[in-house]
Amino acid sequence: MIFTANRKMQHLGEERSAIREIFEYGNKRKAEIGEDKVFDFSLGNPSVPSPACVTTCIENILKNADGSFVHSYTSANGSLECRKAIAGYITSNFNFPAAPENIFLTCGAAASLSITASALFESDGEVIVFAPYFPEYKVFIEFAGMKVKTVFCRNSDFGIDGENLKNAINEHTVAIILNSPNNPTGKVLSEKEIVEISDILREKEAELKRNIYIIADEPYRELVYSDVFVPYIPSYYDNTVVCYSFSKSMSLPGERIGYIFVPDTLFNKNEVYSAVCGAARALGYVCAPSLFQKVITECIGNFSDMSAYKENLSLLTTALKDSGFSFYNPEGAFYIFLKSPDNDAAAFCETAKKYELLLVPGDSFGYPGYARISYCVKRETVLNSLPAFKKLAQEYKDRGKI
Amino acid sequence: MIFTANRKMQHLGEERSAIREIFEYGNKRKAEIGEDKVFDFSLGNPSVPSPACVTTCIENILKNADGSFVHSYTSANGSLECRKAIAGYITSNFNFPAAPENIFLTCGAAASLSITASALFESDGEVIVFAPYFPEYKVFIEFAGMKVKTVFCRNSDFGIDGENLKNAINEHTVAIILNSPNNPTGKVLSEKEIVEISDILREKEAELKRNIYIIADEPYRELVYSDVFVPYIPSYYDNTVVCYSFSKSMSLPGERIGYIFVPDTLFNKNEVYSAVCGAARALGYVCAPSLFQKVITECIGNFSDMSAYKENLSLLTTALKDSGFSFYNPEGAFYIFLKSPDNDAAAFCETAKKYELLLVPGDSFGYPGYARISYCVKRETVLNSLPAFKKLAQEYKDRGKI
Repeated sequence: MIFTANRKMQHLGEERSAIREIFEYGNKRKAEIGEDKVFDFSLGNPSVPSPACVTTCIENILKNADGSFVHSYTSANGSLECRKAIAGYITSNFNFPAAPENIFLTCGAAASLSITASALFESDGEVIVFAPYFPEYKVFIEFAGMKVKTVFCRNSDFGIDGENLKNAINEHTVAIILNSPNNPTGKVLSEKEIVEISDILREKEAELKRNIYIIADEPYRELVYSDVFVPYIPSYYDNTVVCYSFSKSMSLPGERIGYIFVPDTLFNKNEVYSAVCGAARALGYVCAPSLFQKVITECIGNFSDMSAYKENLSLLTTALKDSGFSFYNPEGAFYIFLKSPDNDAAAFCETAKKYELLLVPGDSFGYPGYARISYCVKRETVLNSLPAFKKLAQEYKDRGKI
Repeated sequence: MIFTANRKMQHLGEERSAIREIFEYGNKRKAEIGEDKVFDFSLGNPSVPSPACVTTCIENILKNADGSFVHSYTSANGSLECRKAIAGYITSNFNFPAAPENIFLTCGAAASLSITASALFESDGEVIVFAPYFPEYKVFIEFAGMKVKTVFCRNSDFGIDGENLKNAINEHTVAIILNSPNNPTGKVLSEKEIVEISDILREKEAELKRNIYIIADEPYRELVYSDVFVPYIPSYYDNTVVCYSFSKSMSLPGERIGYIFVPDTLFNKNEVYSAVCGAARALGYVCAPSLFQKVITECIGNFSDMSAYKENLSLLTTALKDSGFSFYNPEGAFYIFLKSPDNDAAAFCETAKKYELLLVPGDSFGYPGYARISYCVKRETVLNSLPAFKKLAQEYKDRGKI
């Protein structure tokens, strides 16, 4: 008897991501010894409330709107009002021209990326990702039928080495994915770095006589903790498609709302926008959730209060430095990418568990020898975890590794 | 210069569906002559409000829940509470065993179908659809990499001819899609018909030594207007995967909430469930919208008041019969599939436009010679449209076609 279930999809579904594995362990452990005794830094689930505007807006909609149309379908690309609001926000905040015809509302960043990958699919196509990278990039690119080409970031500053990028580009290169502020390092690409990358791409476009896109994955754009400037990539490179999500900036991860921005600066803007519409249709995305389209229309520009993250970051980096740990000093997002003192991240994370510290090995992000700390947690968790980090450091000091 | 945008996706995005085309024409026409003068029967957008429970539930959630966790991620397959509620509903209402482990929450029926198609993908695989059928079936099946095999329903009663089904099944047949109550005919498959189809599939499974699934696409399950019995297909055929959506039954089409039910009766339940998880992941579905998972948990079993549809149906069928039109007498859904008097549906729909009646040619559903009336509209629209249908009939009577 032949039992048909797609093996590839089956394995993708069975494969418990390392992150999820640790999260489940944490839940078990919390049940055993008490929630406050376990320091779970595994998940990137925002820990601060949505801006007040969200609740007010939903309450007003439910109170005032005509019952039969509150939850109706919108156009596949999103309601005109919502696309107008987003385009207006881009224009005024990034000083970059945007119109409703450039915006496609999606069910969050993952949807944006999966749709974009299918929209740009080309047989034998390759997409360049920079390690460490968000693990799902590989899933989306390969599902779309393309290959992932990995370029390792410098481990001194997690910057992108121009020569390595040049060497990775060939006649099959469809796009590169930039993620700044970065998950898992917290790095923000500087203007100088964006200009360098853009110059390389333009040079290669001319040499290879083909278009190369930047896919700018920007869910952490607003999560920066100093006056660091986050360059708006379309301003530097014409062939940029922006994938955005309101999950992190407005603490709405479960509601699945984001967008794809296809600027007029693309050489083939209309083709790409149509391909985005077509890919969304084929993947089964009828429209982005309609109530939250209304919320975004009203609330765009309102963000969650990030000061809690900033405090967590400051507490952790001070303590980690004092203990002798090495890490990239994050400028944004809510992650710290900690160097494993003995370069074996899996062993390091196991050792950390002894002190009830739950970290994710960098191997999941294609970058061994590091561990990710997600500090989008309650302040008490951070405060209570500090002695544990100290003990963890002491163990490695005793071993002569710190 | 090579400009990469996937042509197939591009065309899929550019191709304005006939339904959307007519809808846009209707909007233009309404602006010209007034909303109440145009009888727009093109879209399947529920016209009755959601059950009161939906608003109450959202208000309570916003009032009582901990702000930081209202909009959090759930597990990829949905929150345990929501899966429990759905499993409980299936068990008690259809007398069919279901557990949370059988349920995968999705962003609506389109997502359910696209995910299921990718989960069951097999190279050279074929999926049988029965014409007339929902046009997106073809899009999802082909995107998943399989072929559509069309079996025409009898035009006497839109039943499925057993011999035609048998002839369509071969060693590549992965699944058949059943949609009852049906879009666009309103037909409900009887128990006798389900038994006959199941017998044929089992016979073919034994003969071909391979699994054949029924994909039961059931968004209209609760939209029935008499005491007609809607058999629960998993009770008749073990290898059934149910794709359900709350869009129509609770008037929540824009919110994108539905589920896939993978019963334990499947020979390879675990493999299929894992493949569903994997396909959802690859397609970029992180989780179903979290607020509406909470709504479903609370409100499952509450439906929109369908009496308005029943009244519309009764008004229309009486008038259409009186005018001499032929159609299948619908038992469910909110569509009437009207026979075009001269068998040219496109011409018929064009003629109907003269009387401001907007109908969709059956060609869109793979079944020429008919036109679909979506009667999920305001009662006034139906009442005001009746003289127009009479005039339309008169024109065809004058031509000797009725």
